[in-house]
Order: sequence, then structure tokens, then C-alpha cells
Amino acid sequence: MKGFAMKKIGSIGWVEKEKPTIGPNDALVRPTALSPCTSDIHTVWAGAIGERTDMILGHEAIGIIEEVGELVKDFKKGDRVITAAITPDWNSVEAQGGFGMHSGGMLSGWKFSNFKDGVFAEYFHVNDADGNLAIIPDEIDDLSAVMACDMMSTGFHGAELADIQYGDNVLVIGVGPVGLMSVAGCALRGAAQIYAVGSRKNCTDLAREYGATEIINYRNGSIEEQVMKLTNNKGVDKVIIAGGDNDTFATAIKVLKAGGIIGNVNYLGEGEFVKIPRAEWGVGMGHKTIAGGLMPGGRRRMERLLDIIKAGRVDPSKMITHKFEGLDKVEEALMLMKDKPADLIKPIVLIKY
Amino acid sequence: MKGFAMKKIGSIGWVEKEKPTIGPNDALVRPTALSPCTSDIHTVWAGAIGERTDMILGHEAIGIIEEVGELVKDFKKGDRVITAAITPDWNSVEAQGGFGMHSGGMLSGWKFSNFKDGVFAEYFHVNDADGNLAIIPDEIDDLSAVMACDMMSTGFHGAELADIQYGDNVLVIGVGPVGLMSVAGCALRGAAQIYAVGSRKNCTDLAREYGATEIINYRNGSIEEQVMKLTNNKGVDKVIIAGGDNDTFATAIKVLKAGGIIGNVNYLGEGEFVKIPRAEWGVGMGHKTIAGGLMPGGRRRMERLLDIIKAGRVDPSKMITHKFEGLDKVEEALMLMKDKPADLIKPIVLIKY
Amino acid sequence: MKGFAMKKIGSIGWVEKEKPTIGPNDALVRPTALSPCTSDIHTVWAGAIGERTDMILGHEAIGIIEEVGELVKDFKKGDRVITAAITPDWNSVEAQGGFGMHSGGMLSGWKFSNFKDGVFAEYFHVNDADGNLAIIPDEIDDLSAVMACDMMSTGFHGAELADIQYGDNVLVIGVGPVGLMSVAGCALRGAAQIYAVGSRKNCTDLAREYGATEIINYRNGSIEEQVMKLTNNKGVDKVIIAGGDNDTFATAIKVLKAGGIIGNVNYLGEGEFVKIPRAEWGVGMGHKTIAGGLMPGGRRRMERLLDIIKAGRVDPSKMITHKFEGLDKVEEALMLMKDKPADLIKPIVLIKY
Amino acid sequence: MKGFAMKKIGSIGWVEKEKPTIGPNDALVRPTALSPCTSDIHTVWAGAIGERTDMILGHEAIGIIEEVGELVKDFKKGDRVITAAITPDWNSVEAQGGFGMHSGGMLSGWKFSNFKDGVFAEYFHVNDADGNLAIIPDEIDDLSAVMACDMMSTGFHGAELADIQYGDNVLVIGVGPVGLMSVAGCALRGAAQIYAVGSRKNCTDLAREYGATEIINYRNGSIEEQVMKLTNNKGVDKVIIAGGDNDTFATAIKVLKAGGIIGNVNYLGEGEFVKIPRAEWGVGMGHKTIAGGLMPGGRRRMERLLDIIKAGRVDPSKMITHKFEGLDKVEEALMLMKDKPADLIKPIVLIKY
Repeated sequence: MKGFAMKKIGSIGWVEKEKPTIGPNDALVRPTALSPCTSDIHTVWAGAIGERTDMILGHEAIGIIEEVGELVKDFKKGDRVITAAITPDWNSVEAQGGFGMHSGGMLSGWKFSNFKDGVFAEYFHVNDADGNLAIIPDEIDDLSAVMACDMMSTGFHGAELADIQYGDNVLVIGVGPVGLMSVAGCALRGAAQIYAVGSRKNCTDLAREYGATEIINYRNGSIEEQVMKLTNNKGVDKVIIAGGDNDTFATAIKVLKAGGIIGNVNYLGEGEFVKIPRAEWGVGMGHKTIAGGLMPGGRRRMERLLDIIKAGRVDPSKMITHKFEGLDKVEEALMLMKDKPADLIKPIVLIKY
Repeated sequence: MKGFAMKKIGSIGWVEKEKPTIGPNDALVRPTALSPCTSDIHTVWAGAIGERTDMILGHEAIGIIEEVGELVKDFKKGDRVITAAITPDWNSVEAQGGFGMHSGGMLSGWKFSNFKDGVFAEYFHVNDADGNLAIIPDEIDDLSAVMACDMMSTGFHGAELADIQYGDNVLVIGVGPVGLMSVAGCALRGAAQIYAVGSRKNCTDLAREYGATEIINYRNGSIEEQVMKLTNNKGVDKVIIAGGDNDTFATAIKVLKAGGIIGNVNYLGEGEFVKIPRAEWGVGMGHKTIAGGLMPGGRRRMERLLDIIKAGRVDPSKMITHKFEGLDKVEEALMLMKDKPADLIKPIVLIKY
Repeated sequence: MKGFAMKKIGSIGWVEKEKPTIGPNDALVRPTALSPCTSDIHTVWAGAIGERTDMILGHEAIGIIEEVGELVKDFKKGDRVITAAITPDWNSVEAQGGFGMHSGGMLSGWKFSNFKDGVFAEYFHVNDADGNLAIIPDEIDDLSAVMACDMMSTGFHGAELADIQYGDNVLVIGVGPVGLMSVAGCALRGAAQIYAVGSRKNCTDLAREYGATEIINYRNGSIEEQVMKLTNNKGVDKVIIAGGDNDTFATAIKVLKAGGIIGNVNYLGEGEFVKIPRAEWGVGMGHKTIAGGLMPGGRRRMERLLDIIKAGRVDPSKMITHKFEGLDKVEEALMLMKDKPADLIKPIVLIKY
Repeated sequence: MKGFAMKKIGSIGWVEKEKPTIGPNDALVRPTALSPCTSDIHTVWAGAIGERTDMILGHEAIGIIEEVGELVKDFKKGDRVITAAITPDWNSVEAQGGFGMHSGGMLSGWKFSNFKDGVFAEYFHVNDADGNLAIIPDEIDDLSAVMACDMMSTGFHGAELADIQYGDNVLVIGVGPVGLMSVAGCALRGAAQIYAVGSRKNCTDLAREYGATEIINYRNGSIEEQVMKLTNNKGVDKVIIAGGDNDTFATAIKVLKAGGIIGNVNYLGEGEFVKIPRAEWGVGMGHKTIAGGLMPGGRRRMERLLDIIKAGRVDPSKMITHKFEGLDKVEEALMLMKDKPADLIKPIVLIKY
């Protein structure tokens, strides 16, 4: 089969591979919608996860089941399914303790385009099909569904990490697709004011539509000053970090109230340390909790996010600015994520059979 | 001063009393908007809290501060304020443990029209003004604000008790004003499907507007059967009880999934026992948790609910179907709550000075 | 192979069956220590789970692995292992949501001597070996280990359900083996006063050793009166129900403070309803939460309980009052649980090869 | 009255002041047992909270009530009482939200020897007596009681911040009095292995007595290496930081499992940043939560800690290595904390009238 791969760090291209073989618990899926992610860019051009050779890229996909292993109970050939970017080993002790994304070791629930071939191919392999696939209800179109694989799960996880409560005033740093979903996730968990940090108009407009009450443009002054002004020097109850870099945490600590939480869903690609300013962190005594983690994956997660879409609570397909048709367009879509033109939020590739 | 009182069980009327005196931590407030509550009806005609003599009724009010005690720091004469129906003693051990509504004993955080005169008067007394008043932002009108005192706080507490999470499918039993606010509270905490049980069209229409995805009319068959059919026999993740009686719990247990929670905010006015069906409760082993509790009160609660209104997340004033002007109209408004005409959801009395 | 079975309701005896066959994820184990449970008695003589024919009994066992399926990664023939009474399907949506004991439906994580043959046999089958077995550290003897399968996991779960916190004053109703482990579990979660209800001296003595500060003998008056007297009429913060019947809940509600929690781990074998007294339950408003659930099972649970034993925090083998040798003694041990002589707490059968 | 004060940064001595006046909610207390704290040393010699002039030192004391304000309900002259080092304004929004220690601003619940005179005097002032005093039961001696004011509350808070659960393997860094109480607090919340880092024999011996299963001496190699060796390279579930400096966090992150929590109760006295190693923190995705906060204060906290002592769960008086008699000995006791002789854990000054 054909797949679009990282050939080595800094190099991409098509590869021809054997169709994956599946074990008794697994499934083989033909993708019908794919979306490249900024992580793919990090993987290839920043070498973020180290060297890989001819590894098929991609971890956001929905599709049609081609084959299931003999122990798979709830899915069959022909089912229209989604699989999360993270596909845990559900019987691991980590998953039993609530951290499937770290099953087998920190971050090891992330398998697609990390430990095995990803989804940008004619077929992809899903481990533990009963635990990692979910049926897509007929009411949900491909565009919305594929946004649940990673963007919605990761963005919403920012709101979960920050433990958003009724009436929280929240700062969301970053309004790329993950940050936008964090904004929506905050509005859907009862936040009051949502201050979203961004500068590109298509993103900030959509941030408002998803529930942001104020937009903070870092080109208009420091984020700290703008937040403190907007909050009458009280600061915010929670911060979600969905963009920026290691230094973003110092900003977050400074504007956060005692008793607040930072929820990070930004992949920190470089630098040795995240630096927490000691005094503003209350000399270690301020109850300003710093949390960060990989999105939850698996069947239940996907079922619940799809249920939210089905109930009309949020429409993540609004983030899709570029649509392509045909697997061969995945390269073009991927390069969009690399080049980030001004009108891009998220591209998608639809595949018909 | 003049107040509208419960003269004794079954009897109401105007009384003339001394203006309340305030201690160093307290405040005196002139009401500008009042709303009678079904609890007032229970208090007078069902004798739900026992006998009372010439006790001024009412616990939902906003107003203008007339006077504050000498130790009050954050409020002053002339401030436009709200006070919750529940006004805890914040330094009690119960409040320190997170249960201010039970400060000094079970339910004892409820003082207005229970242990002291209520708000249907020219002036009312607020204990611990710094802890129990909140400034109403200019952006919020009287109608929305007064709905936060009890309806919104109680309704949202149903969603808190049921610990609504992203993607929960929820049954809300009852779509009176509290149930309507529970529906809104579920939608604002990330629920997916919300099944609301009710029959009156103005209520069910508003339930849909607040986020209900299906209306269940108990006149069309048993609630159990309708819920099980709608959920493909899976049942629901959570149930909020905002209406009905003791027997409603049996219905709730039957349609609740293992691992689910019932959040009750319905005042159970009569009957000796709430009966939990043993087998459907998983012979005590089903992790079907039964929770119920009085709304949280106090300043922080009111500030947060007002922040939610200010951010435009919900408009509770849509529940107001009947508006009156002048304190003397409080009797008429109260009798509406007693008689419950078909077009009533919630009445309000506005008072101008 | 030989197994000791429920032949039908009310009848027990030895049966001869084929050695279980295992799938690719499973294991076959030879038991080295077994313990009968009160549930076995309910199953046979009360018909609590309905009719069963020639079903091998028992769900508390440790042993030596005889064989593992080809996909099992972490265990091999000859390993000394424990398996919990509850063996969830870890990839089910229920387990992914934290309720493995209800995987596939309420209570369906309970498989041994319920949906399949139990452990009172020459061999027993363990589904999902990687998820449901745990290595027993050399430091832990067979006696302590086998107590972790159910007694310790269930007893400790009572303390988890009641969410015991530093300084809680707790009532534990029942000091059979589960209640004793609830007492130990409370002491190990920071409870202050622990009032244990029981009458048999060997049990109440051990309750004191495990951390009970007072023993309440129901023969000396009502539990309510004794608790209220001991607590200066304040009542207790939490109640764990590990004995009694449906009516025990009324007692628990009456002595529980507003804001408290009841954690039930008692299998309620008969009666139509658990009756919650409306007034003492705060007319539904008292924040007296009623929780109850089956013990968590699986590998992580067993590893953690064994770690607690290994660290010397508790010695559950003190509960073993009767030791037998040889599989053929299982009948005698089981009959002890049925007849409950005064000196019995828990019997065990050791098997040497 | 006489008091022992910080005269300015780096200088201490006796001062003569007016006896404090009390408001209607307050109390005046005569100390009967005092204990100096490392924080007092930081305050004076490191200038940790900035300049202060003639401010009476000390925040750990028990005593006899001399006078109460007219609104105080539950306490009277002559009562033997404890007050926590932290005395929140309980009606503040912060306290209503669960963070009384930050009432009025970050760390502002800390008033003694910070915003007002401390307890090293003939009399000291307690704000909100009903909320901040607790009766000491007769069963508890002065030595144990005074250890609850700060050492036990702070040490246990480490275990609370780290959210210790049954079977957690925990690293406690530091075995000064706070670290020792963290060890005890972990053992009392169900931890399995507790690895305690320290080098002084009296402290490490007591750590074992309080529940540590292994002692790690940083003189025998890096903490990381020793922990990883002891845990078979798995690392620990939780870390409590009760000593060290900003760099201690890097150690903690490195040995912490994904999904783990760091609970810091160490006052970080200097340095600009706490540095979190990016890669070992899972590039921001490892669910290694960093929490830190000031101890909870107030009446309920003290009542619960005293209840734990009364129930015999822990004896904090074992930490007292040096006993003095008479207020005039407070200087000597304080200098011990400054000089830290090898045999010191915690000094106490008893005062008889």
C-alpha cells in the first residue's frame, strides 16, 4: 500500500509498504478523512521525537473498517469509525489508574506516527479495536468527526486540566485549532469571562464565536498588563496554555490568582527548562497548580466528544479552512501546516472510494 | 416598616414591624426586585418548616444598601447588591468544611423566612454583609439578577451534585424554574443529550432553548420506558431531580447507568421514606450515587453566577412570565405561585423609590 | 479436573470438568491458597444471583501460573500470582470511565463463580492476564496475599466510597472480615475516631487492633443512641456499611452529619427497597450522600494492596482463624462460612503441589 | 506587655507594647506553650517578608483565653485553646472558595508575625475567634497540641497536595519537623513505600518511626539515582518537597512517574526561578502536576488535627527535642532554630501562670 512518510528528519515523501497485519484484538481501517497536525511538522522538521525512517505520518483520521481480529466484539467490516490520536493499552496499570495516554511509559499511549505507522496511508492499523474505535453516528459529518481525533480532545483537555468551574474567568493563550477548542471547552464547562490571546483575525473571530469574551493581541502590549487591566488587577482563576513556548508559563503564573490552575496542552518542543517565577508563584506557597498532559484517547473519549457534537453543543468543523480530495493531496495539506498561511486554521483531506 | 408575612400556617397578610437593627458585621437593604418561590408556598400552606407567627416571607431579592455595620469593609450605603437565599455563617466549622448551607446545623444556612424575617418588606437584614452580599454589575438588569438568588444557584447545584462531565447524557426531571436552570446548568457543564421531563408548553419550549435535546412528557407513558427507548436501553449517565416526589427516586435509579449519580435539588415535602429499589440499585453495589443538597449561598456564589450572566452564557430572565410593580403587589405575585396558572414560570415584583 | 461446585440452588458437591482453555490474552492458574466468602453462601443457599448448574464456586485465590496465552506480555508459567475477585474487561467503555467492575453491564466485572467457573478447582481461568494478574512479592506470605483478593479490596473500598479524610469521625457498621478491613482502611486514610459496630469478641478485639477507638454493641441499645451519645449529639462525618440489611441505611442517615457520606460495601441480599428517612435526610437537601459499590479489581488494585501489606501498614492475615490444607478441604472451609461458629473470622485452604 | 520581636532585618530583642485591643469578633489569649519556627528565622535574618520594625515574632502557640469580643459565641475566658499559624478571614471570597490561607490576597491568611504581632508575648490577638480558635481536649497535652499549629498542619498538607492514595509510593524530601509530619501524613493516608531524604540520625530515626520505609541520604549519591534504584527504575507515584531549594523540583520531576504529583510545602526563600526540566516533564504532556501551598488554618483544621492526636494516630510531641520554661526563654529557643545543633528537631517553651 501507499503511505505518506517521514523519510528521515527533515525529509518527507511517499513510500510503498505492506498492508499492516492485525492481531486478534486489532482492526485495519481505510481512511475517509485525514488531517495533518502541527505535531507532524514537529516530528519531521524539528526531529521532536527523534529519528524515524520511512515512518508513515498522521494521527488524525476517520475511516471504514476493512478487517477486524477474531476477538473483536463490537466492530465489523464496513463500520464507519473514528480512532483517537492516542490509542492506549487499556489493560496497562497506567490506564487502570486513569492515565491511558501513558500506558507503557510516559507518552507511550501515543502510537500513530510515533511507535508505528500513522494514518496517512491506504490502510492503518488500530490496536485494541474494542477499546480504541468508536462508531460515528450518521448525524455527524466527516469534517466534524475528524476534528474530534485530536484537536477537540486536546483542546477540551486543557479545560479539564485547568478544572474549569462555573464562573471561572479564564485566560486561553493561543487560538490555533487546539486553543480554539480550549475556548469552546471552557465555554462548555461554565466559564464566565474567557480572554483569548491571538492575533490572526480568522482565529480570533472564531474564538469569539466559540465563546471568548475578549481578545488579547500580544502586539498591543504584554499579556500580563492587558490581563491585569481587564481584571481590575485581580488576575484570572485559570490559565490554559495552548501556544507559546517555555516562557509562556511565567506569564501564566503572574496573572493567575492564588488557588488557580494552569492547564498546559502545548507540546514544548525546545529549551532545557520551564521557568516558574518564584516570588509570583507565592514562594511555593500560593496554590498555583501547574498541570499539563497529553489528551485522553480511546473509545469512550471519542464517543463522548461525538455525542457533544451530535447534541449541537459545538461545531468543530468551523475550524476547517482548507479542504482537499484524495489521499495524494495529503502532502499539500501537510505543507500548509508547515507554512501556515494567514488564512489557515486547519486543513482536511477527504478520500472517496 | 411594612412586610408581607406568614401570620400562621395557612394564613398570610401584611404586618407592621420595626426596621431591623444591624450588628457590626451586618447590612440593611431596601429591596428593588423580589420574587416569590414555591418554598414560600410550602412554608405557609404546607407548614413545611413548622409554625411561624408574623414572619415576613421571601428569600429572593436584590436591592440598595441602606446601612452597613461598622466592621463591614467592602460595601457601603447606596450599593446595588444581591444576596443569596442562603446566607451562611462563614466562620462556622461547617462552612470551613465546604458546607456553608449547613452552618450551625443541617439546613441552618437558610435564614430568610425561616429563622428570621424574609425579604418581602421595606427593608431586610443581611448577616455578615462582607460574606453575603455581592455588587451587581451595571451590565446586569434587575430581572436577571434576582433569578440568581435561588433559581439559578439551586438549578446549577443540581448539575454540580450530579457532577456533570463532558458528554454526559442527562435526565432532568422537572422543568419548573429550578429544573430549567438545571437544564441550562447541564448544557453549561458539557452535557451531550439532555432529556427534560415536563408537560407545560411554555416550560418545555424554554427547556429546549436552555439546551434540552428531548422533552419527555410523562403523559405519554412512563418516564422509564421513554428514557430507555431514547437511550437504546443504555440508560443515562446522570439524573437531576428538580421536581416530583419521593417516588421519583425509584424512576431515577432505574434509568441510571452503573457508575452514575443522582443530584437532587427538590425539596421533599412529605412522606416518611425515599425508597431506593434494591435490585436496580445493584444490590448496593452498583455505584449509583444518590446526592442531594441545598444550594450554596454567599458572596462568591453570587459573584460567579452574575459573572456567568454578564458573559452572556445564560439569560435567566427568560423565565420571568409575570412582572409587577410596587411592594404591595407581592401578595398577588405570591398567589400566582400558589395557583400556578398554565402560563406561569416565575413572577417578579419590581420596586422603585 | 476436579472442582467444588454449586450443583443447583441449595446444593453443593464436587464436579469433574475439562481444564479451562485459554485465549491469546488469558492465563490458566493452579491455586495455592483459597478462601471461601459469604458471597459463596449467598450464591448457593440464597440463590442470590439466580440458578446455576455445576458452577465451580470461589473467587478468592492466589496461585502459580500454569499457562499463558500468546499475547500475554508480563506473566509466564511458574509466576506466583494473585487475581482479584473482580476481573474487568479493561477495554470496555465502563472501565475506561473508571468503573471496571461494571464492564459490560452493572456488576459484570464479577465473573468468577458468577458468569464462569470460580477458583475452587485444580485450575482456574483468568481473562486478560496482563490486566488482571499481579506478581506477589516474595516478602508476602500466602495468607496475607489471599486476603487482598476481596476482603481487603472490598473493605478499603468502603473507605474510598465514604471518601475518608484526615480527622473524620467514622461509624463502621459490621466487623466481619470486610468490616474489619474497612476499619483498617479508615485508620489508613486518616480517620480520627472509628466507632465499630459488632458483638463477637474475636472480631471486636481485632477491630480495636486495626484502629477502632470504640466498639458499639447493638445488644446494649440502639446504634443511633450510642453513636449520638459518644459524639455529644453531633453525629459522625462518615458511615461505612459492611453488614446489616436494608434497614441499616436508616440508622446511618440518622447519625450522619449534613455534608457526610455513606459508603456501602454490603451486598443487600433481599427486600424490595432501601428506605431513606426523608426528614433525617434533610428533606433531600442535607448533602448526606449515599454511595455503594462493588470492589475495584484488576492488576493495579492488587499491586497496590500488596504494596501496602509489604510496607507493613496492615496485616490482613490476622483475620484468618481457620487454616486447612488440600483442595479437598474446601468444602469444610465453605461450610464454616455457612455455619459461622463463634470463633470464625475467615478460613483459608492452602494447597501444596 | 512584653514581647520578643524582630527589631529590624537581622536584629531581635524584647519590646514593650500595649496589650492588644480586640474587636467584637476577636479574642485575646495568654500563651502557655510556644514554639519558634524556621520561618521566624527567615523573617528576621533573610528578610524573607521584607522589613518589619519591632514586630513581635512567633505563630505557633496554644494558651488560655483572657478575653473575647461581644459577638464571640463559642469561646469564653479561661478556655484552653489552640490557634493555627494561619488565621483566615472566613467571609472572604477566597475562603469561600476553599483557600482561606489566601484570604485578602496571596498568603494573606498568614497574619501572625507578618501583618500583625505574633505570639511570643504575654498576650496575643486572634481575629475571628469563633472561626480561628479551637478547644484543646483534656486528653491532649501542651506538647502535642502546639505541634498542630503549623508543623502538623503544614506537613499533612504536603500529603494533601500530593493527593496520597492507597498504595502510593512516595518520596518525601526533607525530614525536618515539617518533613517528618509529611511522612506521618503519608502513612496516615495509605501510602505504601515512603522514601525519606535526610541525613541527621535523630530525624531519620523518627522518620522511620513515623512510617518511612527507606531513608535516602543525599551524601550517598544523587537522590535520583537512589530512588530509581530502589524503585527498579519505575520512579515514585508522588513527591513531597519539605526541604531543599528551587533545584529540588528538578530532582522531583525526574523521579516522578507520569500521572504523578509534586506537593510542595517548602518556603522557597531565594532565587529567581524554579526550573522544571522540559524533557523529563514530558514536554509539558506528562501529567506530572506541580502543586504547592500554604497550610490550611482555622478552627476546623485544628479540631481535626487534635482529633487525630486524640485518637492516637500520631504523636507529634516526639519531635520536641528541647523544652524550656518561661516566656523569657523564647530567645534561647529561637536561637536554637537559627543555629540548628545536631540534636535539634523542634524546641518548645512552656509558660506557667
